[in-house]
Amino acid sequence: MPRISLQELASHLDAQLSGDPQHCVEGLADLRDANLNQLSFIASEKYLDALNSSNAGAVILSESLADKFAGNKLIVADPYLGFARVSGLFTRRLSKPAGVHPSAIIEEGAHVAATASVGANCFVGADAVIGEFAELYPGVSVGERCEIGERVRLYNNVVIYHDCQIGPRSSIHANSTIGCDGFGYAPTAEGWEKIHQLGVVRIGENVEIGANCAIDRGAIGDTEIADNVIIDNLVHIAHNVKVGEATAIAGCVGIAGSAVIGKRCTVAGAVAINGHIEIADGTHFHGGTIVTKGNEEGGAFASTPPLQSVDQWRKNSVRMRQLDKLFKQVRELEKALKSKNQ
Amino acid sequence: MPRISLQELASHLDAQLSGDPQHCVEGLADLRDANLNQLSFIASEKYLDALNSSNAGAVILSESLADKFAGNKLIVADPYLGFARVSGLFTRRLSKPAGVHPSAIIEEGAHVAATASVGANCFVGADAVIGEFAELYPGVSVGERCEIGERVRLYNNVVIYHDCQIGPRSSIHANSTIGCDGFGYAPTAEGWEKIHQLGVVRIGENVEIGANCAIDRGAIGDTEIADNVIIDNLVHIAHNVKVGEATAIAGCVGIAGSAVIGKRCTVAGAVAINGHIEIADGTHFHGGTIVTKGNEEGGAFASTPPLQSVDQWRKNSVRMRQLDKLFKQVRELEKALKSKNQ
Amino acid sequence: MPRISLQELASHLDAQLSGDPQHCVEGLADLRDANLNQLSFIASEKYLDALNSSNAGAVILSESLADKFAGNKLIVADPYLGFARVSGLFTRRLSKPAGVHPSAIIEEGAHVAATASVGANCFVGADAVIGEFAELYPGVSVGERCEIGERVRLYNNVVIYHDCQIGPRSSIHANSTIGCDGFGYAPTAEGWEKIHQLGVVRIGENVEIGANCAIDRGAIGDTEIADNVIIDNLVHIAHNVKVGEATAIAGCVGIAGSAVIGKRCTVAGAVAINGHIEIADGTHFHGGTIVTKGNEEGGAFASTPPLQSVDQWRKNSVRMRQLDKLFKQVRELEKALKSKNQ
Repeated sequence: MPRISLQELASHLDAQLSGDPQHCVEGLADLRDANLNQLSFIASEKYLDALNSSNAGAVILSESLADKFAGNKLIVADPYLGFARVSGLFTRRLSKPAGVHPSAIIEEGAHVAATASVGANCFVGADAVIGEFAELYPGVSVGERCEIGERVRLYNNVVIYHDCQIGPRSSIHANSTIGCDGFGYAPTAEGWEKIHQLGVVRIGENVEIGANCAIDRGAIGDTEIADNVIIDNLVHIAHNVKVGEATAIAGCVGIAGSAVIGKRCTVAGAVAINGHIEIADGTHFHGGTIVTKGNEEGGAFASTPPLQSVDQWRKNSVRMRQLDKLFKQVRELEKALKSKNQ
Repeated sequence: MPRISLQELASHLDAQLSGDPQHCVEGLADLRDANLNQLSFIASEKYLDALNSSNAGAVILSESLADKFAGNKLIVADPYLGFARVSGLFTRRLSKPAGVHPSAIIEEGAHVAATASVGANCFVGADAVIGEFAELYPGVSVGERCEIGERVRLYNNVVIYHDCQIGPRSSIHANSTIGCDGFGYAPTAEGWEKIHQLGVVRIGENVEIGANCAIDRGAIGDTEIADNVIIDNLVHIAHNVKVGEATAIAGCVGIAGSAVIGKRCTVAGAVAINGHIEIADGTHFHGGTIVTKGNEEGGAFASTPPLQSVDQWRKNSVRMRQLDKLFKQVRELEKALKSKNQ
Repeated sequence: MPRISLQELASHLDAQLSGDPQHCVEGLADLRDANLNQLSFIASEKYLDALNSSNAGAVILSESLADKFAGNKLIVADPYLGFARVSGLFTRRLSKPAGVHPSAIIEEGAHVAATASVGANCFVGADAVIGEFAELYPGVSVGERCEIGERVRLYNNVVIYHDCQIGPRSSIHANSTIGCDGFGYAPTAEGWEKIHQLGVVRIGENVEIGANCAIDRGAIGDTEIADNVIIDNLVHIAHNVKVGEATAIAGCVGIAGSAVIGKRCTVAGAVAINGHIEIADGTHFHGGTIVTKGNEEGGAFASTPPLQSVDQWRKNSVRMRQLDKLFKQVRELEKALKSKNQ
């Protein structure tokens, strides 16, 4: 466990420290659970009660709440961001020793930087490049001619197909697949003729991709994930999709082929986005929304049907099938009433 | 193929045997398909016709149906449970030889029980513990300091990140990921600041998890799956979720961060559950439901929209966008009619 | 980069060539992007403008559009199919060298054809058969007694459980799982008694399955994917499902246990199909549809709720819960008006 003094934390955060600079903490906890050896934070006034009674060894908070806590404080402009910035100091993840594990297979012409770490049973294909300080956890496969940027982290069993690019400081979690074939076929008399997928996947800098995702290579042209995009687990991104800078995509989302997603969008969980549509910068989709068409201006959109008890739902559900008929009935009523009035 | 006498089966099931105790069966089959060398079962009166004409070598059934079948019978209180209890006798899965495959990598300080089996190309991180009779299939990665309980079965290419715990007799199917980072970031001017995920995943006893699932580690505090939970394929469970005892979660479900799911819930396929909500014990969600809010009492809930032909759906769908307007029209009509009546 | 003459392409496509037979192309591109060294195609009149101004070295097109382009042309009956047929000539994927990588583990009794390729860190279980020209990419696991047909391609980290069959010329993309246990349990007082899954998965000829999919083995009897089926990424297919010939299943689809899907169906993305129902040949489901019941005749079906701005959606959503009440109000109004008329 790391032990870190409040002085060090204040300097890391560029925070104003009120309290004992020599006091040390060795972990993060919620206001309610934190003890004297732990650091906490408050990002919303909702938690003022918890702040009052917290036993935390120090709290990250904004100036406006500084007088609400008697103990040690680290005062910053954005306490939630402050919390994020210190969180990395307390991880127990080991940094990997540089070097190639003896069980890893490095094919001819591949270049692994001296400061990179390639774990047990990894496979690096011919002419691939693994950048400085990159970390490949056990079981990772990197295809022929891939370019893996500096400080990229590929967790266990990630598979990158040939010719793809992963930008500097990006991370991909376990069991995700990058560069698999897009779903492209021409119909024939017997079934389907495969359209070989000739493009690649290009992932920008500082992107994070969750576990068990699949991102298809382009058919003609490439699939592109811009810088600073964050993607959760079990997300499917089809061929030739473009995802704009700093967009966030939550778990279980699917994006169909050639969709273009703008910058700084937030896509909640279980959303499905149609292919060949364009989503404006700054768009938000509620959880479970089926996005059938594009939009030209940002804003918030939803299609989520309301949650009901099964009894209620059964009655109302039948009615949804008769909705068009009802509109016509109401129009008839209006006409009838109007004619009476005349 | 195992050959098992009805006497053995009766004793295994604590069943009343009517028929030839020496008769042997070597597999299970449906009532319609079963032959003399096979065992079948009937769990619902719907299948009475099939029972009548079945050629099964023996049938597991309840006392109330015992006189409906002329052949060998194993009479039990709950025939479906009886079927489950004998099914394991007929599996062809080989139990793994104990020991560590020469190609497996065991890091310093890890402890593998003498009766455990660690397959080809597995990776066991520093200070991890693999319990008695545990089975790791080829390609499994277990992170630093993990605790894998006795008789746990991790199928091929399962990845467990560092510091996670898997309770005794639990199974996890191939290509699933446990303990990957939760989706936690603080917004910044350029994009997102990662919140390092400091918690772990703790999985109880006798849990089964399907293939290609992802269960995130906690941000602060842990993600917890209680004893006897069953989870199907392609399920995403976000950071700090708690799933209560004996809850069943079907395929393609996503559960967002910090949701608390009660005991003995049944979550049908393709359900998406919002974060930071609490679901009462004994709740059932219909397939495809988007669960936007918690509930305080169990019961059955749904939001699934009705299936329609595309022609019908097109007409009714347009109307759903005009629903609020329609309610107002109807209110106007009511007022107009009322004023006429006065 | 391959360089291919138009003469060769015409002969490969059985196309009528108009232009310079010695001209060579070395890649495919869209009409707008293509240069003199690239081949393009036009499959819809929508792109006539792009055709006019295209710099492509040659264009695949139909006779009806042949006079709309001045450059080299390959005239065929179905240009989209023509494009698919030539796409494979330009892939950069290396064909694997035949033979077993020294790091691969081949268990006793397994048979690997001399022309097959088994990559680094693969595992082939006892008595499995790997057919002629089959390609196993690094990290693949094939269970005991599996039969992998000729020219099958299993991409990195695919896991096939014991006793499953993959037909000739089928491909399965990275991190997919075939033959994991179905989700079958009998309820007990404490939780759930596992029903051991005794069937297998049988996949036909010329099937393609995407990345990060899971297809369960049968409980009793088998799960079956017929010839020429195509399946996208992150698809879940439960135990005992049957998928008919040449059916196409897009990404993020889930199909529950024992569903029977007909031939030549097209299932769009994020569809969820209920268990124990039968879907007729030639059925199409729109994206995001929840399929609660079967159908006896093909046709197009949907349940997708309409996309709305959040403001609109909030108003209309409340109304959906009051729909049944509204129908009753309208009926009362009709009665009241009728009684006035009498």
